[in-house]
Amino acid sequence: MATAFGFELLKLDGRARRGRLVTPHGEIDTPAFMPVGTRAALKGLSPLQVRGTGTQVVLANTYHLLLRPGAEVVAHFGGVQRFMNWHGPVLTDSGGFQVFSLADLRRLDDDGVVFRSHIDGAKVTLTPEISIAVQNQLGADIIMCFDECPSLVGASGNAGKWECGNEPTDAGSAPHLPTIPPSHLPTIVDAVRRTVAWAKRCKAAHARQDQALYGIVQGGLDVGLRRTCLDQLVEIGFDGYALGGLSVGEPPAAMREFLDAFAHELPADRPRYLMGVGTPADLIHAVSAGIDQFDCVLPTRNGRKGYAFTSRGVLRMKNAHHRLSDEPLDAACGCETCRGFSRGYLRHLFMNEEVLGATLVSLHNVAFYQDLMRRLREAIATGRLETLKAELLAGPIAGRRDEETE
Amino acid sequence: MATAFGFELLKLDGRARRGRLVTPHGEIDTPAFMPVGTRAALKGLSPLQVRGTGTQVVLANTYHLLLRPGAEVVAHFGGVQRFMNWHGPVLTDSGGFQVFSLADLRRLDDDGVVFRSHIDGAKVTLTPEISIAVQNQLGADIIMCFDECPSLVGASGNAGKWECGNEPTDAGSAPHLPTIPPSHLPTIVDAVRRTVAWAKRCKAAHARQDQALYGIVQGGLDVGLRRTCLDQLVEIGFDGYALGGLSVGEPPAAMREFLDAFAHELPADRPRYLMGVGTPADLIHAVSAGIDQFDCVLPTRNGRKGYAFTSRGVLRMKNAHHRLSDEPLDAACGCETCRGFSRGYLRHLFMNEEVLGATLVSLHNVAFYQDLMRRLREAIATGRLETLKAELLAGPIAGRRDEETE
Repeated sequence: MATAFGFELLKLDGRARRGRLVTPHGEIDTPAFMPVGTRAALKGLSPLQVRGTGTQVVLANTYHLLLRPGAEVVAHFGGVQRFMNWHGPVLTDSGGFQVFSLADLRRLDDDGVVFRSHIDGAKVTLTPEISIAVQNQLGADIIMCFDECPSLVGASGNAGKWECGNEPTDAGSAPHLPTIPPSHLPTIVDAVRRTVAWAKRCKAAHARQDQALYGIVQGGLDVGLRRTCLDQLVEIGFDGYALGGLSVGEPPAAMREFLDAFAHELPADRPRYLMGVGTPADLIHAVSAGIDQFDCVLPTRNGRKGYAFTSRGVLRMKNAHHRLSDEPLDAACGCETCRGFSRGYLRHLFMNEEVLGATLVSLHNVAFYQDLMRRLREAIATGRLETLKAELLAGPIAGRRDEETE
Repeated sequence: MATAFGFELLKLDGRARRGRLVTPHGEIDTPAFMPVGTRAALKGLSPLQVRGTGTQVVLANTYHLLLRPGAEVVAHFGGVQRFMNWHGPVLTDSGGFQVFSLADLRRLDDDGVVFRSHIDGAKVTLTPEISIAVQNQLGADIIMCFDECPSLVGASGNAGKWECGNEPTDAGSAPHLPTIPPSHLPTIVDAVRRTVAWAKRCKAAHARQDQALYGIVQGGLDVGLRRTCLDQLVEIGFDGYALGGLSVGEPPAAMREFLDAFAHELPADRPRYLMGVGTPADLIHAVSAGIDQFDCVLPTRNGRKGYAFTSRGVLRMKNAHHRLSDEPLDAACGCETCRGFSRGYLRHLFMNEEVLGATLVSLHNVAFYQDLMRRLREAIATGRLETLKAELLAGPIAGRRDEETE
């Protein structure tokens, strides 16, 4: 019998939490960052390289694995961890986010969604029951309820239109919570109603005791709506609680203000997961607000594009001024890339489209994120989080939109 | 002062040789296979991964590094080894082969060549003196004379036409040495004359005592012409001798028959390098004929394309019958890929164009080549090379054209 799922809260520092998740495939120190291995692979990184970054848990996308190779194939190989040769815990999302952001949505109703695959146009149905059955087959240590994720941008009330994405499209500061366009409110209310109804069906459908199931709180930036959603989810009862529908187009400051107002209301004895977030500054804010888990494509996606996160701000590797630079990406970093490769060499790789460049900068970026999380965890353990937060946010890490700093 | 270059012959088994090269950046057990890191990077493999395959020495291409980032940039970083973070010896070619096969050749005369870069059309001049000066700047442990490499296919006597390539275009057996088309003979005679004259200038231009300089023997499949060329090169005197102008379109059997007839005539006290060769079967034949060093893009190029060399023949990873296979690529292989990844997972990566697939199969292929070399070295050391050769060539390793076996 596999180890049961558990969450231990080790230390509080303000609202920030130092904790530990126990899963069948290993322990996870929280707050934890989970890099994204979309199709059961981090793009360009071997599991050994991922492990070398300090990563303890990775995320895989149910939507992608459902389409190819199929959940039954992954199950045949003994589950997603064994399939991808990752000797640690994995979390799968429900597939909903990609259905709404990638697929050609054909029907959304209370039963679920019907969409056309972005690969071959095949018609696929996803319901709470199907999402859980698929995730049971994939066999991740932590699985997610199937929810509805509405967009927070645009004035359209069209329920068939979503603009979800992992990167904010506008990073300008917004000093106060923006009013959700009135035409949006019915969409969000409807998404909350559906998300709760689907969560109940997910819980009922969940067939594996060795997988933790998290509920997802929706409700846009409206604390009242979020509270309503959360109360109903808690009544159903989940192993952890996630905030969905954030970092989907709203200004980052609005998300941060919302987290300060609401994250601490999530049950204290369960892990709290902020989905699809975010930049280093986002993580610092959210940890301070009491969040325990994060996932985001930024370190790998930006790494592939030649953008390196560093303690001195973001570097664009193709910039000509790196040509003769013998410096590592980040003198403060001990990753494999920083131990052996110069900025000049990495620039050379990107200028020549050598795929090793994407691998080395992605590896560094994930290590940078993990090192940030380690510093945050240590600061919480010693009661110094607010000091570290102030120090970090006053520095280049909190640059406006990182990719634009060079 | 860096270690001087040296070659020690440890054991003879028939004409096969077990030896050791000593270079400023480390020792090389021979016979040795050198994977190709065209632009100072093996495609998709980190130096740590390359080291894990058992590789002791890699090749980098002067032509590519000359165009980008420029030899002065590589020199600025302390040479090609440090630039690419490879803690071992490197060999650079002269640039000639790529000029003849990749570039738009504008002029070829006794002075050298003028060509247009395949990247931006810039006009570049390469002479023996320039090639050596560039290789002195790149700083590899072993550098090569600038030679002329004529094609062995086609009936054209046009000196401006070459069809060099690393893969044989026809792998059918040819029981006897083919007659070189008469229209070709003047081209080859001319190439030998020029290659010898250029070799003399290369030796005179070579300015670094810590780099070994190899001469390149040309002469097509004509043993008499090769002998004439070699005699003149030996008179000039080089640290090693290479066979150029093979595996450039002639039938593999013709190359093998030529090697049996000539390879042992190369000086016994110097390393013998067969350039741009070859398939596993080619290597077995050539080692048996007395060759010490090889380079070839096959393991990485075929790996990228999803073809895996194995002791049971070549696997095409996209084939549907791998879909549910839990087997490693090669049960006889101990590489990182075979220790942790199933054929089914690798197929999944290739079907989804996940770049990790290219990395993992390239890694395996290089390890497969290195394991083959290790077995050949051990067989020579114990006087069993002909037994191993017969055993290997009777098996699936000697498949007709490996890529076509599935």
